[in-house]
Amino acid sequence: MTSALPCTVPIALGERSYPIHIGFGLMEQAEVWGDLPRAAAAVLVTNTTVAPLYAQRLQRVLLTYYRHVHIVVLPDGEAFKTWNSLNLIFDALLEQACDRQTVLFALGGGVVGDMTGFAAACYMRGVPFVQVPTTLLAQVDSSVGGKTGINHPLGKNMVGAFHQPALVVCDLATLASLPAREVSAGLAEIIKYGPIADMEFMGWLELNIPQLVDLEPQALSHAVRRSCEIKAWVVGQDERESGLRAILNFGHTFGHAIEAGLGYGQWLHGEAVGCGMVMAARLSQDLGLVDGAFVQRLRTLIERAGLPVVGPVLDENDNAGRYLQLMRQDKKSQAGAIRFVVIDGVGCAALREAPDALVRRVVDACCQ
Amino acid sequence: MTSALPCTVPIALGERSYPIHIGFGLMEQAEVWGDLPRAAAAVLVTNTTVAPLYAQRLQRVLLTYYRHVHIVVLPDGEAFKTWNSLNLIFDALLEQACDRQTVLFALGGGVVGDMTGFAAACYMRGVPFVQVPTTLLAQVDSSVGGKTGINHPLGKNMVGAFHQPALVVCDLATLASLPAREVSAGLAEIIKYGPIADMEFMGWLELNIPQLVDLEPQALSHAVRRSCEIKAWVVGQDERESGLRAILNFGHTFGHAIEAGLGYGQWLHGEAVGCGMVMAARLSQDLGLVDGAFVQRLRTLIERAGLPVVGPVLDENDNAGRYLQLMRQDKKSQAGAIRFVVIDGVGCAALREAPDALVRRVVDACCQ
Repeated sequence: MTSALPCTVPIALGERSYPIHIGFGLMEQAEVWGDLPRAAAAVLVTNTTVAPLYAQRLQRVLLTYYRHVHIVVLPDGEAFKTWNSLNLIFDALLEQACDRQTVLFALGGGVVGDMTGFAAACYMRGVPFVQVPTTLLAQVDSSVGGKTGINHPLGKNMVGAFHQPALVVCDLATLASLPAREVSAGLAEIIKYGPIADMEFMGWLELNIPQLVDLEPQALSHAVRRSCEIKAWVVGQDERESGLRAILNFGHTFGHAIEAGLGYGQWLHGEAVGCGMVMAARLSQDLGLVDGAFVQRLRTLIERAGLPVVGPVLDENDNAGRYLQLMRQDKKSQAGAIRFVVIDGVGCAALREAPDALVRRVVDACCQ
Repeated sequence: MTSALPCTVPIALGERSYPIHIGFGLMEQAEVWGDLPRAAAAVLVTNTTVAPLYAQRLQRVLLTYYRHVHIVVLPDGEAFKTWNSLNLIFDALLEQACDRQTVLFALGGGVVGDMTGFAAACYMRGVPFVQVPTTLLAQVDSSVGGKTGINHPLGKNMVGAFHQPALVVCDLATLASLPAREVSAGLAEIIKYGPIADMEFMGWLELNIPQLVDLEPQALSHAVRRSCEIKAWVVGQDERESGLRAILNFGHTFGHAIEAGLGYGQWLHGEAVGCGMVMAARLSQDLGLVDGAFVQRLRTLIERAGLPVVGPVLDENDNAGRYLQLMRQDKKSQAGAIRFVVIDGVGCAALREAPDALVRRVVDACCQ
């Protein structure tokens, strides 16, 4: 992988603004790290899969800026996005006597990013952190926008904080080591930006999905950049999700039910979101907001990205009931009513409630 | 206890501003709660000591505003200010399917307030909460200003968040049930406001300390109000402790070492702070910032409040070394250097480093 010029997407959030740098081989370009807050120590948090690939390389570059760069290696996977893993970070910070100036670096996918960000939000009531996402999903979604947190046995991401990073560095070269299944999972979040905000981008994706599956540099670079631009635009208007930002959860209400119902880690988050978007699109159709042709078009794109488009059966006796039960715990719910992100005319998303009977029909039609 | 008119101290923090209501019997005055955010449910968090005294009473009043008012009872004491206790709150919130509008109420002392506030900061990345402090210490210090958190085995309040309450209700009538030792602990934080900010208030305290020890309503009301006013003034200028706010930690660096060294809960926080102020005053004297007469004057006031003025021996072999070791973990430390809050001329506090040898002399002079 070479070529594709580096670029920068700014996130405009007043005094919490920061840049996203996107390009190949950025991790080892020392100047990328030059604007960071000064401190005696940095703590690099990563996982057992990513550590052997990139941890020492990043540590070496950071040592030109920090006297000490400690490494914390967490177990890999959504199943470990727990308080126990989070506490490994706090243990290391305190054992190394890290002060309030210490900068945390999240090197890995969404799980590492969410936990490192939450640790940074809470350690001594807040220290700076930097996202260095090494998965496609983290580069286009989770590492941007400041959502951090851990799972609770009764719900995903139920404990967390809004804590913006000081910098996001998307080194596209790290994607070369990504399994195909995780590339597809990342494509789910990229595809999402089309129907909710930019149908021109959706058209581009339909033309370029094979190149993206093959990680072709030019296509990859454009897809990551455009995704970050759309996310930046949404987050810049509604940092703490009091309204608009919820549209970024298109496909996530059904998706979270799939993840929770199967047990975290059975399906990748992006896989659940991919399938969840098919279900949410179908719900939009049944609410009379889009036509069947659009649903089919989105379904085809998701399938071509290598993602599941048929929902799993979570309960043999009352599958739709189980989906409903799990979705009532969604953070967008209010007073027991589930609020779905629907497509309200192509390229535009909205938050809507839906009658249980209608949701049941959608679940029945989309699962087997 | 009667008389002493209710009053309100405003905390001015832009969109995070809120009032502190102070008075006798406020808890049962329904209008006190009328301005709160609307929600289907409230969760009242308290502890095993306070629950039998006030929980049902507060629940009854809140039920005029919320359809459901769930009660969570935590174990009592600093030793339980842990993730496990915090998780009891998350468990209850999720078991009751509480949504993002749910309001949390902290009914109790500083430990309940810090944990409830931190749970509110993290649940679904932030829900509103209300402080209903029932100890003197919480009324004049911990319930005001938005510091929340839990302890880590390696340090006090090391994991937490800044999360401002929507309202603070100091019902002075609840202090009647407070053990004398806890009244004294609260007086420590009240006394603190004199030397760091208001020597006129210190003079008033010297005249009124017996009335305060006896919980005389007029004196109590004035002391709580003036303490909250000074804290409001400081927090209003430096919400997240990037500078000035650190002066509120006068006595706390030595105090935290005492608490951690003896094991949390052996000395009450206010007792450790009382003794810590004597040590910090002595340090100020040895740095040439105040004279011996002032140190003696402060020591006498602290002693008359029923507080310890002689530090405990934490290590028979190297007591001063143990204090230094524990104090290096203080959140105000930077790159291993302890930064002490000192009195820099009476009525004015500052942040200073001090040579280890000088700190050792202070510890040796103040402990036995």
